[in-house]
Amino acid sequence: MSFIGNVKRLLIGRPIHTKHAHNERLNVPFGLAVFASDALSSVAYATEEVLLVLVLAGSLAAYNTLTPIALVLSLLLVIVAFSYYQTIHAYPDNGGTYIVSTDNLGPLAGQFAGAALLVDYVLTVAVSISAGVQAVISINHGVQPYAVPIACAAVGFLCVMNLRGAKESGLVFAIPTFGFVILVAVLVGRAIFTGLQEPHTAPVLPAGDGLHSMGAFLILRGFTASCTALTGTEAIANGVKAFKSPEAKNASRALIMMVVMLGTMFIGISWAAWHAGIVPKHMSDPTYQTVLAQIAEQEFGRGWFYAAILIATAAILFLAANTAFADFPRLASFIGRDGYLPRQLSSLGDRLVYQNGIIVLAIVSILLIVKFNADPHKLIPLYALGVFVAFTLSQAGMAVHFLKKRKMTVYRHDRELAVGETLDEVAYQKRRRKLAIQMAISIVGAITTFVVACIIVVTKWEERVWIVVIAFALLMLIFRIVKGHYNSLAKSLSLSRADALPEMRSATLLLVPRLHRGILQAIKYAQVTADDCRALHVSLSHEQTAKVKDDWGHFGADMPLVILESPYRSLVSPLTDYIDEMQRVDKNLMVTVIVPQAVPKHWWQGLLHNNAAIQLKLALGSRRNVVVTNVRYFIES
Amino acid sequence: MSFIGNVKRLLIGRPIHTKHAHNERLNVPFGLAVFASDALSSVAYATEEVLLVLVLAGSLAAYNTLTPIALVLSLLLVIVAFSYYQTIHAYPDNGGTYIVSTDNLGPLAGQFAGAALLVDYVLTVAVSISAGVQAVISINHGVQPYAVPIACAAVGFLCVMNLRGAKESGLVFAIPTFGFVILVAVLVGRAIFTGLQEPHTAPVLPAGDGLHSMGAFLILRGFTASCTALTGTEAIANGVKAFKSPEAKNASRALIMMVVMLGTMFIGISWAAWHAGIVPKHMSDPTYQTVLAQIAEQEFGRGWFYAAILIATAAILFLAANTAFADFPRLASFIGRDGYLPRQLSSLGDRLVYQNGIIVLAIVSILLIVKFNADPHKLIPLYALGVFVAFTLSQAGMAVHFLKKRKMTVYRHDRELAVGETLDEVAYQKRRRKLAIQMAISIVGAITTFVVACIIVVTKWEERVWIVVIAFALLMLIFRIVKGHYNSLAKSLSLSRADALPEMRSATLLLVPRLHRGILQAIKYAQVTADDCRALHVSLSHEQTAKVKDDWGHFGADMPLVILESPYRSLVSPLTDYIDEMQRVDKNLMVTVIVPQAVPKHWWQGLLHNNAAIQLKLALGSRRNVVVTNVRYFIES
Repeated sequence: MSFIGNVKRLLIGRPIHTKHAHNERLNVPFGLAVFASDALSSVAYATEEVLLVLVLAGSLAAYNTLTPIALVLSLLLVIVAFSYYQTIHAYPDNGGTYIVSTDNLGPLAGQFAGAALLVDYVLTVAVSISAGVQAVISINHGVQPYAVPIACAAVGFLCVMNLRGAKESGLVFAIPTFGFVILVAVLVGRAIFTGLQEPHTAPVLPAGDGLHSMGAFLILRGFTASCTALTGTEAIANGVKAFKSPEAKNASRALIMMVVMLGTMFIGISWAAWHAGIVPKHMSDPTYQTVLAQIAEQEFGRGWFYAAILIATAAILFLAANTAFADFPRLASFIGRDGYLPRQLSSLGDRLVYQNGIIVLAIVSILLIVKFNADPHKLIPLYALGVFVAFTLSQAGMAVHFLKKRKMTVYRHDRELAVGETLDEVAYQKRRRKLAIQMAISIVGAITTFVVACIIVVTKWEERVWIVVIAFALLMLIFRIVKGHYNSLAKSLSLSRADALPEMRSATLLLVPRLHRGILQAIKYAQVTADDCRALHVSLSHEQTAKVKDDWGHFGADMPLVILESPYRSLVSPLTDYIDEMQRVDKNLMVTVIVPQAVPKHWWQGLLHNNAAIQLKLALGSRRNVVVTNVRYFIES
Repeated sequence: MSFIGNVKRLLIGRPIHTKHAHNERLNVPFGLAVFASDALSSVAYATEEVLLVLVLAGSLAAYNTLTPIALVLSLLLVIVAFSYYQTIHAYPDNGGTYIVSTDNLGPLAGQFAGAALLVDYVLTVAVSISAGVQAVISINHGVQPYAVPIACAAVGFLCVMNLRGAKESGLVFAIPTFGFVILVAVLVGRAIFTGLQEPHTAPVLPAGDGLHSMGAFLILRGFTASCTALTGTEAIANGVKAFKSPEAKNASRALIMMVVMLGTMFIGISWAAWHAGIVPKHMSDPTYQTVLAQIAEQEFGRGWFYAAILIATAAILFLAANTAFADFPRLASFIGRDGYLPRQLSSLGDRLVYQNGIIVLAIVSILLIVKFNADPHKLIPLYALGVFVAFTLSQAGMAVHFLKKRKMTVYRHDRELAVGETLDEVAYQKRRRKLAIQMAISIVGAITTFVVACIIVVTKWEERVWIVVIAFALLMLIFRIVKGHYNSLAKSLSLSRADALPEMRSATLLLVPRLHRGILQAIKYAQVTADDCRALHVSLSHEQTAKVKDDWGHFGADMPLVILESPYRSLVSPLTDYIDEMQRVDKNLMVTVIVPQAVPKHWWQGLLHNNAAIQLKLALGSRRNVVVTNVRYFIES
């Protein structure tokens, strides 16, 4: 234990005192850096995902829909952002989709949003880390065979860092985030500048596979592939409280900046890729590059810029994964506090972090990475559904919120009118209208994102979206079971003043397999602690029994020695029979069985001992009126 | 536990009373059936192994050495058998190689023989089961993809049967063993009969691979491949006591019969294969057949005889594996009794079998089968070395035994002569001469098998025999470490009359995280059993602490309540600090910590509780003067 303890301290540091539980407040740029990395980083792979779908048709017509799709997506982004802008102002105290949904739509909707977000956070880690490794592969192909171990190590590193409870320092986030944004801006800028002087290069498309022809369904699939660019948009709304005062204003500024950056980068990259006629390469291709890497090579060659933008990509994706390491444990702790997940997820560890949530997230995302071979193209199709379900619920929640508020405003107004107060009718009408508009925006947002979620389910069903649906269902089931257990537990354990201590008498049995130096401590312990104690020897061989009888006279401390025969060579059943007999006589008798237990110096030596103590623990584990007490002796050699 | 207990009972049956520990005694044919299946079954694959080596040269000259190799092997068999014939008479009480070697050559030689035999038994299971599955594949190729699971299931079945402690019933063994012998006799008889009328068919040899040309080394390798036919020869000598009286005479009869059958079958099959020009097929061949199956098809076509002989082959191989399930646990129990392996291997289970040895054998052989893909051609090269090491040590041991006996005879004779008794000089000389001859036979046997063992190591080194050598070394190391531990344990625990009970005072702490109905039992237990008891509450939240203080007045049973602050939110460290403080005052103070522990109805519910009891067990595990007592409360819902 002390070895494990030392390793733990080395990895995650000394405990932190409760009084240090406070947070650095962030200004707008730093807040943007901390909360936007998830959303902004998705432009690193979103264009590639869309292209991968579009080239399936093998037709130029399909390929040419790339930029329009990016434009539609940006429109969707604006709708979603509007809705979150309202959420920030309505819930400045870290609303978060789970709380907004629970408050306004009831616990079931809240749970559904919670399930969607938990799945989404896990996928954020798996997708971001896998895509980050791909950026590294684009720099050096030698890395390819080690993609899975590198990805797992990155998750492990994030896990340890978050267990240490490193504060989300604005500066650490700002460098890669803004570095990435600036490099992408330079790249897109140059691509547009050179692009406008040259004609569009026709892509060398692979032959269509016949199954996929240019059609509405393919375009829809391309559009749903682009939806991954929207993941992470909710992060700022969930973290309003981390901003400097005035929180809501600063957060909404950061949101607007993020939306502008995200939309511009996505449209720019998509246009640049289309204009250069870039076709995504296959993962198995030994010269694999991401689409972003291809654009960069096209514009700047394989020089320092190429390396810089890919390193920045890997860095911002790593930060994006880190965002999930902040969000998942916090959300899990909320859900745990409400009793839908194990309570351990809500307990702050000695480094003031929700350590269990961090560990669960790391394990599940490593499993996903291993299962899908660190291939983002396999993981991304699973990704967007959770976000859009959460969007829909959050915005539906906001719509209900504004509806309630409007009703309340009308009710108050009418009541005040009834008691004859003088009212500012202009302000009242303005206020009513404003609430109606806000509600309308939320409804539009909810409907839009709901439609997109449906499109995702339909078009990506075959790309394993059913896994996500099953994961939702499973989580909902778990919530239900856990809650049920806690409820019935609380009911059966709740104490009333009418309860009294049970009646109880006590008897002690000391188990003596043979006498040796280690057992003397147990004999003394029995003698000191128990008034009515009998020594018990289960006879497995006659010689041994004779020896025990002989030795007992000398060391037995006047305790009576009972010999039990064991015709079936079992240690356990003669003892349980004996206890049964004792308790048949007195049914309120609590029997304490003292079992001397050898503690070897090294763990493997434990394998060389007949571990009677464990056997007895198991055998007596289901008996209500038996307490097993191990008195240990330590073997030095 | 009770569920596991029920499954255990269902699988392996009710306990058996010690008084039923007796064995059915076997007559010669039944004894032959029980102990010879291992040896006889090896003709199912030995010829194929030799041919696989010989065809590597791609030359007829090499192919034609098949029958001569079989003849040489039979000569070797006779030498080994002679030696065991003597062992049977000299050690009628189940000598066994381990005991013969230990008695005559010392414990180190005994350990080496033990290691060799343990490895050999494991390989017997892996090889026999794999070869049995191949026989089944020869009947129906559809089975091929399921070879590994079928082989593992067969081992599992053997494991369960042996855990049940099914007596080695002669009749059950006789049917497949004699069935196999008779069918092989019919096959070989017909092959000779038809073969003598037709000329030898030249084999269609694959091109030699150049690396292997016809030469002494290749012939030696072919010969070592044939040595697998000798595995199991020692079984009768190890089981003399199982025969009806006169044991030695009956056992030696069975030995002679076995040798004759084994030699004849091996020579016959080899000759038949050679005469029909049979070339072994590759495992990957979709029409894979064993060599025996090819001969059977040649003679009888693919009719009922073909199926019958292959089913008999699978059956006798299954029995051969079963032999190892009798031998391995018994040998492991001998070695464990001598303190070189964990003692648990020597304890008879409630079904009167050495269950731990059976389980270890099953696990290791399943690992081997999975690792080598149930391919006997990969396993067999590992196989013969262990047997020949054991042969060598056993026969060297017998040589020393006869030498000692001869010395004793001479010494007695000389002493009696000195005191002037009248002696039967003729009988004395005859006796001396007989002992000299017996010694000579053993020496010849020891040298021959030693030479063969060396040849095996040299010629099969590249076919992974080094794995076996490493396994020997590892086992020897384990023996040494285990013995060392037991020796020093016995030394440090041995009790002298000068030892006395240690000085000890006792104090009890009752841990109260919060008050609920389940904890009342623990409070009462503390009240009833302990004179000096304090209740302890580690404060993790102020509200909770206030609630505990309030409730304690009502349910506290006049016990003082101590509140410990925990600034680092740890349950454990305030408690350990408190105990440290208590024991600093009185260093002979034994502190009992009573921890109320929730026992949920279903195991998974345990995951929903903060399991403080386990945390405390781990944290206090290394403290000498602390006893942790769990008082459990059962949650019904």
